[in-house]
Amino acid sequence: MPHTFSHPRTLPSHAIVREVGLRDGLQSIATVMPTAQKIEWITHAYAAGQREIEVGSFVPARLLPQLADTAELLAFAQKLPGLRASVLVPNLKGAERAIELGADLMIVPLSASHAHSLANLRKTPDEVVAEVARIRAARDAAGSKTLIEGGVGTAFGCTLQGEVKPAEVLRLMQALLDAGADRVSMADTVGYANPGQVHDLFAQALHIAGERFWCGHFHDTRGLALANVYAALTVGVTRFDASLAGIGGCPHAPGASGNAATEDLAFMLSSMGLDTGIDLPQLLALRAQVVGWLEGEATHGALWRAGLPKTFTPQPHPAIFTAHSR
Amino acid sequence: MPHTFSHPRTLPSHAIVREVGLRDGLQSIATVMPTAQKIEWITHAYAAGQREIEVGSFVPARLLPQLADTAELLAFAQKLPGLRASVLVPNLKGAERAIELGADLMIVPLSASHAHSLANLRKTPDEVVAEVARIRAARDAAGSKTLIEGGVGTAFGCTLQGEVKPAEVLRLMQALLDAGADRVSMADTVGYANPGQVHDLFAQALHIAGERFWCGHFHDTRGLALANVYAALTVGVTRFDASLAGIGGCPHAPGASGNAATEDLAFMLSSMGLDTGIDLPQLLALRAQVVGWLEGEATHGALWRAGLPKTFTPQPHPAIFTAHSR
Repeated sequence: MPHTFSHPRTLPSHAIVREVGLRDGLQSIATVMPTAQKIEWITHAYAAGQREIEVGSFVPARLLPQLADTAELLAFAQKLPGLRASVLVPNLKGAERAIELGADLMIVPLSASHAHSLANLRKTPDEVVAEVARIRAARDAAGSKTLIEGGVGTAFGCTLQGEVKPAEVLRLMQALLDAGADRVSMADTVGYANPGQVHDLFAQALHIAGERFWCGHFHDTRGLALANVYAALTVGVTRFDASLAGIGGCPHAPGASGNAATEDLAFMLSSMGLDTGIDLPQLLALRAQVVGWLEGEATHGALWRAGLPKTFTPQPHPAIFTAHSR
Repeated sequence: MPHTFSHPRTLPSHAIVREVGLRDGLQSIATVMPTAQKIEWITHAYAAGQREIEVGSFVPARLLPQLADTAELLAFAQKLPGLRASVLVPNLKGAERAIELGADLMIVPLSASHAHSLANLRKTPDEVVAEVARIRAARDAAGSKTLIEGGVGTAFGCTLQGEVKPAEVLRLMQALLDAGADRVSMADTVGYANPGQVHDLFAQALHIAGERFWCGHFHDTRGLALANVYAALTVGVTRFDASLAGIGGCPHAPGASGNAATEDLAFMLSSMGLDTGIDLPQLLALRAQVVGWLEGEATHGALWRAGLPKTFTPQPHPAIFTAHSR
């Protein structure tokens, strides 16, 4: 076995699955889910133990009518004790709403691919960094506690430009921190990442950002999302975005899966003995309900079909989230 | 980040994907594939660079009519230079045919779960070990070069008995080696394994068996097959069974995926820079052909739908396999 060696390894004791299906999932599909159903989704996700949910995005409703009720969902989510509700904000205008409404956290997407950034955000990556500085100033001026997360997308490659160099990804992550982001995360927006890449890039990101490196976001476009999560875990990342039933998908790959499926990810983590606070049977019941609402839309995941293994020991009850620690 | 640490890591420089779709895949589905199609499958898999193929099983044709043409396929495969053709043999009688026909390798399955072993093989695990000793004696008496691989199944749990203790799995692996197996491998027969478990068990197995630890066999029943492969790679295992289009599945989980899909596994490995010798576009073309032959059967995998990433650099040509090294 040349070039290999084994090593001792200890996995983290817990991990957090942040639900992004209501934003990243629903924005990518045709169905417009009624607000009442979204509220039921949030309610049951909370009951199943999920404590971090991205409820929507503050973008103009004409651009994303699927997410037009974000303010209402945020207000609802804020009533649930211990739930951290986050929203995506593409710019200062969206951030001002998140601040005004007191979101726990707002995620500002940046695309490390120059080509993707111009095509999707009509800004260069460095112009987004400058916007984050303005968002930070507005947040501080308002005396708000809303955390700012800079999310570096296309961090592992891009369908338009191809390769995205790790050095550029890390430079932009550092620039986001310097501009005032409280947290940074990285996303494999187009499903290009492999676990070796994730291991190496996330190890460097953690080295630079420490506990401010907040979250990994993997699309399962080519079936590697869970392998990528495992690679991230081995370097100490413990928070991951996921979408119930893997809804979402990539417009460049019709029919392909979206984010890692929440239920499969939570199962993998729990199987390895990591505390996620999630009750899997409850989560699977919610999945069935949500899939029922999305008739005609592609849904994904493996656990729902096979069921929990006989060896699976359920966690006794959802953990109560008491601290904002990793 | 308590309880975690990062570590330097070097992945192996190459890995081998052993095709088991013609055996593990086809034995689990209703369709009986005509011999001519199987020969075309072997031919194109070889052309795409695959150099290890399990062509069938020497079991009575009345039990598995899908594999009744194993001898013919073996004879065909043996004509392809550098192709290692293997067969599954459940007992001495099957082994005698493999020896007589000069298979490169024969795999003797053992189930580490007592309950599964009795239900499926009508023998205790230790009775299978005794059979391997008889197979070794027969092989040596015949002056044959056919390698004996002892495959420890239900190594991560069992649908009948539940937990299977790692100490028992390792004891049986050692017993197989002591009885004369040249190689040993481990299988997650029912899709219960998680990457933490794989990391720990495979690290111990390699420590005991060294280069005689030959192969990991993962079912994708709950979506974790590729994460499990990555975990195995990090401890130095470099050979994996896989089934084109993930065919096969588990009778206990209708519709659930079978083995890791060959094309997704080969993609993950190649993406990480490991040499597999496989030409992915050719393999994807073969996948489309085989799926066309299996109308009505469940097929799986993600890459075929999304396609290769723009960043993917194809390997120039299938590697020629010159040595029987790992």
